[in-house]
Amino acid sequence: MATDRTAKVTWQGSLMDGSGTIEGVGSGALGPLDVTWVSRADTPDGRTSPEELIAAAWASCYSMSLSHALAGAGTPPERLETQVTVSFQPGEGIVKGAIAVVGTVPGVDHSSFLAEAETAKQNCPVSKALTGIPEVTLDATLATA
Amino acid sequence: MATDRTAKVTWQGSLMDGSGTIEGVGSGALGPLDVTWVSRADTPDGRTSPEELIAAAWASCYSMSLSHALAGAGTPPERLETQVTVSFQPGEGIVKGAIAVVGTVPGVDHSSFLAEAETAKQNCPVSKALTGIPEVTLDATLATA
Repeated sequence: MATDRTAKVTWQGSLMDGSGTIEGVGSGALGPLDVTWVSRADTPDGRTSPEELIAAAWASCYSMSLSHALAGAGTPPERLETQVTVSFQPGEGIVKGAIAVVGTVPGVDHSSFLAEAETAKQNCPVSKALTGIPEVTLDATLATA
Repeated sequence: MATDRTAKVTWQGSLMDGSGTIEGVGSGALGPLDVTWVSRADTPDGRTSPEELIAAAWASCYSMSLSHALAGAGTPPERLETQVTVSFQPGEGIVKGAIAVVGTVPGVDHSSFLAEAETAKQNCPVSKALTGIPEVTLDATLATA
């Protein structure tokens, strides 16, 4: 059965001068969070933005997917550190996603790790949802012991 | 110039038994946040999930886009309340996004509001990034005075 996850935003006023509040997040794990156009297109000043939330979603999903794939290949990871950067260009939209992962994966060889990391980039559910982003890059490295 | 927004996830262990922490969020507005497979595919128990974060991103972006469009049409909104629900089906991925917006928009007529709401569904930057989601619905209504 599918799981549904919900969030609600209340926006007041215009795009440039107004502001929004993210609340009603079903899990209760976050919010209320302020969001504004300035926090999105200029400086955050402690406020989040749609792109930051997508970066968090993507890094979570990618980590799950790669963890599962590495375990399936007989080399479960001890630790994956995944950083995602999402770039927003006003007037154009979300123009780029950059995934960088550092894995601590006992017994894996380098080329297998790279192959699994690339597969997760293509196949993790958030990557498959975000197919409208024109450029997605991956930088995958193994942690040195 | 594009703005970059970053988040980092540290994942330890397997998909089913391991867990992740969302941190290193550039704005500092959120985190650390726990995320697990169970919080994604079963019950949240106070933990967030990739789909919940996408719902929050989408509701924010949609609100901004609709606010801007309504102002451009000469009927700026007083208030928009946007709820987004994202559905995750293990084994399939993100199968649906449901946008529900209630607008308080002085002077707008119903059909113009619906038209702008539909345009925002198609054209807001997060919608345009999430083109891999097979089904996206919209329920747009005007608040009664």
